[in-house]
Formats: sequence, C-alpha cells, structure tokens
Amino acid sequence: MDKRLYVTILYDFYGGLLTDKQKEIFEMYYLNDLSLSEIGASGGVSRQAVSDLLRRTTKLLTDYEERLGLAARHTRLLDCIDKLAAQCNGLREVMPAAAWHQIDETLTEIREL
Amino acid sequence: MDKRLYVTILYDFYGGLLTDKQKEIFEMYYLNDLSLSEIGASGGVSRQAVSDLLRRTTKLLTDYEERLGLAARHTRLLDCIDKLAAQCNGLREVMPAAAWHQIDETLTEIREL
Repeated sequence: MDKRLYVTILYDFYGGLLTDKQKEIFEMYYLNDLSLSEIGASGGVSRQAVSDLLRRTTKLLTDYEERLGLAARHTRLLDCIDKLAAQCNGLREVMPAAAWHQIDETLTEIREL
Repeated sequence: MDKRLYVTILYDFYGGLLTDKQKEIFEMYYLNDLSLSEIGASGGVSRQAVSDLLRRTTKLLTDYEERLGLAARHTRLLDCIDKLAAQCNGLREVMPAAAWHQIDETLTEIREL
C-alpha cells in the first residue's frame, strides 16, 4: 500500500492519541497537501523542524499499530465484507429486490463505520 | 453493559498500550478471577496497592476509549453484522444450501476478527 495512504489510515485510528500540535502539522501535510516549507512558514519554524516533527509523528502512529494492530484487523474485516458482498451478489437473481436492497444498505453501513 | 465485561472488551483493544505489570495484574483479576488479596499475596504487596493499580489501569483503558472510540465502533459493527445475518437468514428458503453455508462461514469469520 502507498505509504501516504497507510499513514492516513493509521491517523484515522490513532490520531486521538496525538497532541494538538502533532495533529495540526500531520493534517496540513497529509490531508491538506501543504509542503514542508509552507507549513514551516505558517508556523515560523524551519522546513527541517516540520520534517522532524512529521517523522516522529508517523513513527508514533506505526508504533501504536505495532502494539495494537487495529488497522490491520479493520483491513481484514473489509476483506471479509467484500467476500460477503460477492456471496450475496451471487444470489441476487433468487432474492426479492427489496431483500437485496436491505442487504446492500447494511453492507454500505458497515463499510462506512 | 456489565462493567467487568466492558473493561475486558477495552483491554482487548488497548491492552497493548499497558505496561507488563499492568497487564499481569489486570489479567489476574479480570480474566483469571483472583481476589485482590490473592493477587497482593502473590506479589508481596497489599490488597490496597493492587486495588489502586487496577483503578489506574481501568482509568487508562477508559481514557483510551474516550480518545479513540474504537471499541464503540466495533460494537456498532457487530450490531450491523447481526442485522445482516438476520437479513440473510430470512432468505434461507430461497438460497441453495451451499450458498447459505458460505455466507454463514463468512459471518462467523467476521465475528471472530
């Protein structure tokens, strides 16, 4: 998986354990796509200081995942949901349309949790 | 939900963030059902010291849940899985037995994640 995508998934799980400062810089860089120089300029610090903070923050996030494995568990879950969706989809022709609609809604609800 | 059950669920999620000592005492009390006095005696500390450590540990676990909400998210997920199981179950008579068996297996796999 793309490293950038991976750390944003970890942030979704463990961001709540970061400090406000760590969250702010992480979001500027990974979610709002600002450059290190732009982030540094906005906070009056050097590009290098921003880079160091980001490195420590992503290290923290990967450490949390190493200890808890909750993002990996969630990925396995989504794989199972895909399998289940395919299994249900294979039965669409024998299902009443309303029943399929209900199942499809529940699958969407699960994916959005 | 029963408080004892609730903290063991939180432990399942966040136990990896506790120290070895905290994990050991937590498991003795909540998983192996030893009394405070028994735990104290085995470690050469007072009943009160064990009680204090357990209180701090469960506080840590509830703090993690307050910040991350991953156990609550998982509970919502299991509710959705129950709903999906009921929806699929309602279609058993129109499904080939082999198809039901596959779906049932995937639902079990999800519950055990």
